Amino acid sequence: MSDLEIRPASTEDIPAIVAMLADDALGAQRESPDDLTPYRAAFDRLAGDPHQHLMVAVRAQKVVGTLQLTVIPGLSRRGATRSIIEGVRIHGDERGSGLGTLLIEWAVAESRRQGCQLVQLTSDATRTDAHRFYERLGFEPSHVGFKLPLH
Amino acid sequence: MSDLEIRPASTEDIPAIVAMLADDALGAQRESPDDLTPYRAAFDRLAGDPHQHLMVAVRAQKVVGTLQLTVIPGLSRRGATRSIIEGVRIHGDERGSGLGTLLIEWAVAESRRQGCQLVQLTSDATRTDAHRFYERLGFEPSHVGFKLPLH
Repeated sequence: MSDLEIRPASTEDIPAIVAMLADDALGAQRESPDDLTPYRAAFDRLAGDPHQHLMVAVRAQKVVGTLQLTVIPGLSRRGATRSIIEGVRIHGDERGSGLGTLLIEWAVAESRRQGCQLVQLTSDATRTDAHRFYERLGFEPSHVGFKLPLH
Repeated sequence: MSDLEIRPASTEDIPAIVAMLADDALGAQRESPDDLTPYRAAFDRLAGDPHQHLMVAVRAQKVVGTLQLTVIPGLSRRGATRSIIEGVRIHGDERGSGLGTLLIEWAVAESRRQGCQLVQLTSDATRTDAHRFYERLGFEPSHVGFKLPLH
């Protein structure tokens, strides 16, 4: 396969990112790839926050993966800065290719470069394949992740 | 009891916050209340990030609770902004007083005010009392929380 590049997302990448978010058992129910307006507004919010890193993986000029890395300072754990990984998606053509590993390894290396002492993420309890994937990469399933939707 | 105030933390609150972080089964092993230097540096990082809200609950001029609220924009869920609650601690004298509920209700209301569509948090799998508390407040334990310490 041709070389892979992992770089910050630009506005031109929004349709490809949203298509990946929607091409997923859970995402299909909660995304609206036919109307990109809310995603463009969200992209502007991300671009205005220097602690947000929305990334894409690109191979042969095609967006094949994405994730969002957030850097969060805090007092606990002796003033540890932590990072949070959200929105990891791999294009259907690339699943099983090792791209997920490369993306997470990038996020871990970047977290280290930014002085984080901890990387964390949550994964829906139904995504058991993803759980095995994260455990293989050294993540420990030590926590319960709670969500409260606001209406 | 006298009136409760929930307000942004100031540098003068750091010793009281760190004492609460350390007065905890898990925190006792990972905090260093005798050396506040790393906490003061972390406080400066928090103060420099407008998406971080380190709060204290104060009753009769005494800090009796704390939490950190982080606002995170994102593309997924139709460009939803989410908030993350971290570092919830209640002073030993106030446990069972309902203060935890007031602090979380404050965080949920503030998240709503800032346009968040989702509030999330993770809780160590061993904190089963905390899990019941969050479920009573409407949070769903839908996710597994993974952590990777960086050395």
